[in-house]
Amino acid sequence: MKKASIKDVARLADVSIATVSQILNNKGDRFSEATREKVFAARDEVGYVPNISARSLKKSHYMLIGVVVPTLALPYFGAFVQHLQNLLPENMSLSIMSGEQKQADAAVERMIEAGVSGVIVVSQLADPNRIADLLKQCGIAMVVTENHDDLELADVVYTKDQAGGRLAAEHLIAEGHKRVALLGNQVFTDNLFYRAGSFKATMEEAGVKVSEITTHNMSKQSGQAAAMAVSISHATATFALNDELAIGVISGLSKLGWHVPDDMSVIGYDDTDYAAFYQPSLTTIHQPVDIVAKTALDVLMARIADHRLDRQKIAVDVSLVERDSTRPLQV
Amino acid sequence: MKKASIKDVARLADVSIATVSQILNNKGDRFSEATREKVFAARDEVGYVPNISARSLKKSHYMLIGVVVPTLALPYFGAFVQHLQNLLPENMSLSIMSGEQKQADAAVERMIEAGVSGVIVVSQLADPNRIADLLKQCGIAMVVTENHDDLELADVVYTKDQAGGRLAAEHLIAEGHKRVALLGNQVFTDNLFYRAGSFKATMEEAGVKVSEITTHNMSKQSGQAAAMAVSISHATATFALNDELAIGVISGLSKLGWHVPDDMSVIGYDDTDYAAFYQPSLTTIHQPVDIVAKTALDVLMARIADHRLDRQKIAVDVSLVERDSTRPLQV
Repeated sequence: MKKASIKDVARLADVSIATVSQILNNKGDRFSEATREKVFAARDEVGYVPNISARSLKKSHYMLIGVVVPTLALPYFGAFVQHLQNLLPENMSLSIMSGEQKQADAAVERMIEAGVSGVIVVSQLADPNRIADLLKQCGIAMVVTENHDDLELADVVYTKDQAGGRLAAEHLIAEGHKRVALLGNQVFTDNLFYRAGSFKATMEEAGVKVSEITTHNMSKQSGQAAAMAVSISHATATFALNDELAIGVISGLSKLGWHVPDDMSVIGYDDTDYAAFYQPSLTTIHQPVDIVAKTALDVLMARIADHRLDRQKIAVDVSLVERDSTRPLQV
Repeated sequence: MKKASIKDVARLADVSIATVSQILNNKGDRFSEATREKVFAARDEVGYVPNISARSLKKSHYMLIGVVVPTLALPYFGAFVQHLQNLLPENMSLSIMSGEQKQADAAVERMIEAGVSGVIVVSQLADPNRIADLLKQCGIAMVVTENHDDLELADVVYTKDQAGGRLAAEHLIAEGHKRVALLGNQVFTDNLFYRAGSFKATMEEAGVKVSEITTHNMSKQSGQAAAMAVSISHATATFALNDELAIGVISGLSKLGWHVPDDMSVIGYDDTDYAAFYQPSLTTIHQPVDIVAKTALDVLMARIADHRLDRQKIAVDVSLVERDSTRPLQV
């Protein structure tokens, strides 16, 4: 993108460059209000940034890294981004954008304009192949955190969602549950698809009936709204596809007079730091967000250092954390 | 900042522009490994982005807005940023950075380079006057969310922290507490300074003794770590300077066998959405993060539209929300 120059401002405002310079540097008192207005409007229109200050800011080895997450209102993504921020060396800055699908595609395009050297994409893209191709053309490194086999131009760091879904199922089976509820989003990202699919498959093998309850999104509010549906599902245990939904449904069940885990076991997913602090503390699948962030950054840096590396694909392990929100079924 | 060109790459790699072009467009098989390596290294060194793709991305009225928050690991800031994101019209993008003090100053400088039209600064800056001056020189609008009287070059949108501290104090006084703990950060931002100062002043007037307990930072972990100190403070109620500290100290007290509110009343600050979902639900001071975000954006847009506006300074009201974590002292 060609950067707007003072000439562009002068041309659009139909005045001399000297006039623009004086007005923009607050030395334009002798010009008419109309002229000054024209110049300010032209400056805003072309997006002109005076070079003198920009030049003074220039650092020789400074690097900008981009990260795109679905939302910053969910703590898993907030924690992911904050870990990246804490890991970055001094001469790098992190540009963060949030959005999903088309908004995420647009965010990556904005980051190219902003001059990033690499992008970590946590969001599901609307058109991942086009974006990957665009970044490749621009010589910008790309790491995605969904398990994409089809996206050959991007490096991949992902958590083992299939293993996570299976661990959740096995825990509830071991505790004797015969009928469970699966609480999740109406639109599945790939991650959620693997997580839920593996949970259901494991349950099916064990002969456990799964009632699927769809939530509006992945928030506490959605989990709370689903509490009534959970309570009439005949399930004795609920697997919520993230900790937010788990906290929401526990709080909703409590309004119905149900106590977790006595009246219902609830297992979450993520192990954000609210899981340990909630009352009851949550049994959940731990995704090591710190390790995922560090690995994604390492992979990105390796790609930036050498764009001809073989494709990097790293899977990060998850684990079951048993706390107070689940207990063996007493029959 | 002058954008790196293909010429810069060619000069640094000591090859022709045509060579650079072919190698960077994956048509460089006939060149030696050494030449290709030199070109890739030079491209990375000067930060060159091919113009062809950048040009195709150019939108005529596209605008970039920046926001700098202290951290994304605290939900108040995550929610603030997400509200901004949701409010932005289609032709604008949000660039988010996190950091405090010098890191925040550097973040604003990076945003200037990235071509923002305006910046909302939630973080405390190390050198606010220098940053405000720099943005002014660049014709970039600036809104801060701390109550700065000295920062004449920035517009201000802030919440009434003094009122918030007083409301918390008055609630505990009304519930009959004679001895309270104040739980807060070791380093106060201006906001925290006003919040705590007004709480202490109100308590002093009422003859209530305040024990100040310093936490490492504003996290749940810090709140939990302070639970022992709170338990031996002889206080019957605790004012935590944010909800995270409140959740942390309640969870820590629970490990000591103390029940909130029976053994200790706890009041938080922010009313992030965890406050309502926590068990017990938190009594807290509600900061309307949606209104603060909307107001900050409105003020920024007004400034971008007309840089000669009088300084805008808007104070947003806070309110007490009574829930289950406080109760009247029984004597």
